[in-house]
Amino acid sequence: MKEQLRVGILGLGVVGSGSVKVLAEQQAKIKEQTGVEVSIVKALIRPGEDKEAFAKEFQLTLTTELSEIVEDPSLDAVIELIGKIHPAKEFITAALENGKHVVTANKDLMAQHGVELVEIAKANNVSLFYEASVAGGIPILRTLTANYLADEITNIRGIVNGTTNYMLTKMLEDGTSYEEALAQAQELGFAESDPTNDVDGIDAAYKMVILTQFAYGMDVALIDLEIQGIRGLSDQDVAQAQAFGYEIKLIGESVKTAGTVNVSVGPVLVPQTHALASIKNEYNGVFINSTGIGQSMFYGPGAGSLPTATSVISDLVAIAKNERLGISAPQFNEYRRPQALTPDEQVIASYYLAVTGIGQEDLQTILQNETVTAKEVVDTNGRIVVLTAPINRLQLAAVEEAVANKGTLERRMRVMEA
Amino acid sequence: MKEQLRVGILGLGVVGSGSVKVLAEQQAKIKEQTGVEVSIVKALIRPGEDKEAFAKEFQLTLTTELSEIVEDPSLDAVIELIGKIHPAKEFITAALENGKHVVTANKDLMAQHGVELVEIAKANNVSLFYEASVAGGIPILRTLTANYLADEITNIRGIVNGTTNYMLTKMLEDGTSYEEALAQAQELGFAESDPTNDVDGIDAAYKMVILTQFAYGMDVALIDLEIQGIRGLSDQDVAQAQAFGYEIKLIGESVKTAGTVNVSVGPVLVPQTHALASIKNEYNGVFINSTGIGQSMFYGPGAGSLPTATSVISDLVAIAKNERLGISAPQFNEYRRPQALTPDEQVIASYYLAVTGIGQEDLQTILQNETVTAKEVVDTNGRIVVLTAPINRLQLAAVEEAVANKGTLERRMRVMEA
Repeated sequence: MKEQLRVGILGLGVVGSGSVKVLAEQQAKIKEQTGVEVSIVKALIRPGEDKEAFAKEFQLTLTTELSEIVEDPSLDAVIELIGKIHPAKEFITAALENGKHVVTANKDLMAQHGVELVEIAKANNVSLFYEASVAGGIPILRTLTANYLADEITNIRGIVNGTTNYMLTKMLEDGTSYEEALAQAQELGFAESDPTNDVDGIDAAYKMVILTQFAYGMDVALIDLEIQGIRGLSDQDVAQAQAFGYEIKLIGESVKTAGTVNVSVGPVLVPQTHALASIKNEYNGVFINSTGIGQSMFYGPGAGSLPTATSVISDLVAIAKNERLGISAPQFNEYRRPQALTPDEQVIASYYLAVTGIGQEDLQTILQNETVTAKEVVDTNGRIVVLTAPINRLQLAAVEEAVANKGTLERRMRVMEA
Repeated sequence: MKEQLRVGILGLGVVGSGSVKVLAEQQAKIKEQTGVEVSIVKALIRPGEDKEAFAKEFQLTLTTELSEIVEDPSLDAVIELIGKIHPAKEFITAALENGKHVVTANKDLMAQHGVELVEIAKANNVSLFYEASVAGGIPILRTLTANYLADEITNIRGIVNGTTNYMLTKMLEDGTSYEEALAQAQELGFAESDPTNDVDGIDAAYKMVILTQFAYGMDVALIDLEIQGIRGLSDQDVAQAQAFGYEIKLIGESVKTAGTVNVSVGPVLVPQTHALASIKNEYNGVFINSTGIGQSMFYGPGAGSLPTATSVISDLVAIAKNERLGISAPQFNEYRRPQALTPDEQVIASYYLAVTGIGQEDLQTILQNETVTAKEVVDTNGRIVVLTAPINRLQLAAVEEAVANKGTLERRMRVMEA
């Protein structure tokens, strides 16, 4: 029975220093409830970084050498908060191979190389936990493994990118333009100076890869997903969707149909009465349909120093409990199924299509040729918006091609059923 | 390492038979992920109850003798789904004393005798789990223990009674009267034929007792709570609250202030923009404020056969994992703090007061005497509604007394800050 867990941390940025602070505040409570004294004792910083005062306050040894952390035999676990793929992947690998448990918030890395890293963790009999990688402060991954094992998830939908949800809220509520909304998000520090990963849906896609693994036990790669962003979304579309009774949200969706999954990220028309429409500003929400529980949703901050740090420390607490109980290191998610993707003809949805450069009659002919029913058609000075009845991906592709031959498809979005 | 978990079940009503079905459906998945084959093999029914066909389908042995379950050495765990205090308490005690783990959905019992039963479980080195006792399908209790240990909760607010939330939704959205809404809830099977526990807030109070234990480690009794229901709520108040920008919800609230807690249940004016206002119909929601994560919310079905059964089976899975790992039986919630209730003068809130039989001038005098500021005053044919600025409980009590001396206080509700 271990009564101490000594931890090294890679990176003392906002989440890193937040993690040190959260642990310092909760250390006594954690010790009382787990019987283990968890402490962060060493930190890797970049050469030239000035963290002396912080290190003194929290009794940290600072180093610029990775080996001084991953090869330190007195350390039991390592927190990785450097982000991106390299050198984070090499650092985590080195820590695991040196028999350290690892906690990371790195969604890019876990989405792209998670399978490989989990294998390395297993081979070295240590745990690799990454609760903070999806929806920052929402404890969604541990909840999926602990509470949905006796259930069968059929659909998991998430607002998992705070930047774009903030932008869409401003566009909807204040009539802000896309460009202004992006500038505001950057000013508030939600969006990076290069917001590509946020607005093009890549960040959300990483999270959906991880959620799909936890919900269905299936590994999918980014290339298996259909990914659309909200770049250049027009005020017109926001207003038109609203007139139809919907709010536009950037939704990641992972749907199980007859043992196969379809994972997508894109702007979606969410009914104004749906719980996901109530997720505002930089908040995240994950909505689950399952055969047992039915409909459930988890809501909270998707990012931020303290929420993310709290998830990181929760992972440390889980490791401390396992060490205390002398349990051979469990992996975060033991659910495994072979990958099976839903064929295009079985991926069914209704769509919002905004078309220009094409007459209403020609558009109707195109839809009829592909047996697509239009439930709504609105023509505003030659910009035609159509809401379709449910169609499959092959029909959609045929319509898109035919439209592109005669005019321009300005925006295509899925429509969520009420 | 145990590879089998044999379970007896007390009661084969809707949740009991639902639990048998959910387990049958998920048995293979549970075995694959935990390494343990969990099976319900024996059921206690009432004399004369006809469950032969059901028992045959699911290979259950039926009995009308408690001892045949609790004294059966081949059984590892017992599920209690009889409900109410007696004889459920005696049955659970007998099971624990015979070394069986126990899973129950019994909120009345756990709220009133939980401390005693947990002690019996500890003394017999078995687990007592009761996830389904609060907010049926929402995995809130395990989430609180697993994910908020590294955080500090300051406020936990819940819509934890589905019947009253259904009624309030109908009253707000369809203009249904209180009596009609109650009749509808009874027709749909949400409300019992005697709806006292629902409409008077008792059921919600039981759940807040349990949530307070999990959030702060503090045992409180029903007598420590201020409990108000929604009995006889008038259409006028629903409409007036709406005009002020609020929806009336039956909210259980457990607030921590300087190490002390205040727990209450009552109709509350929730700002229309607050996430709790989006919880409609029979759904439940638990909203948490904490120093680390910030604001988070868990939403799902509060009752119903399948959601509740899924929570029951989740508890069995947790027991199976512990048995498999050879862990000495953990208790559900290891967090313990001595009880400390917030003194009345430190319980601060704004209130909605509806008064009749008293003139506006007299009412203003009463408020001034207690230094209570009115933010809104609306006089509709002599029925005066006041929204106060924040005041403490002593001021409130003094106003209530003074009003009662001259007229009638028809309705008093807390107002939630935006």
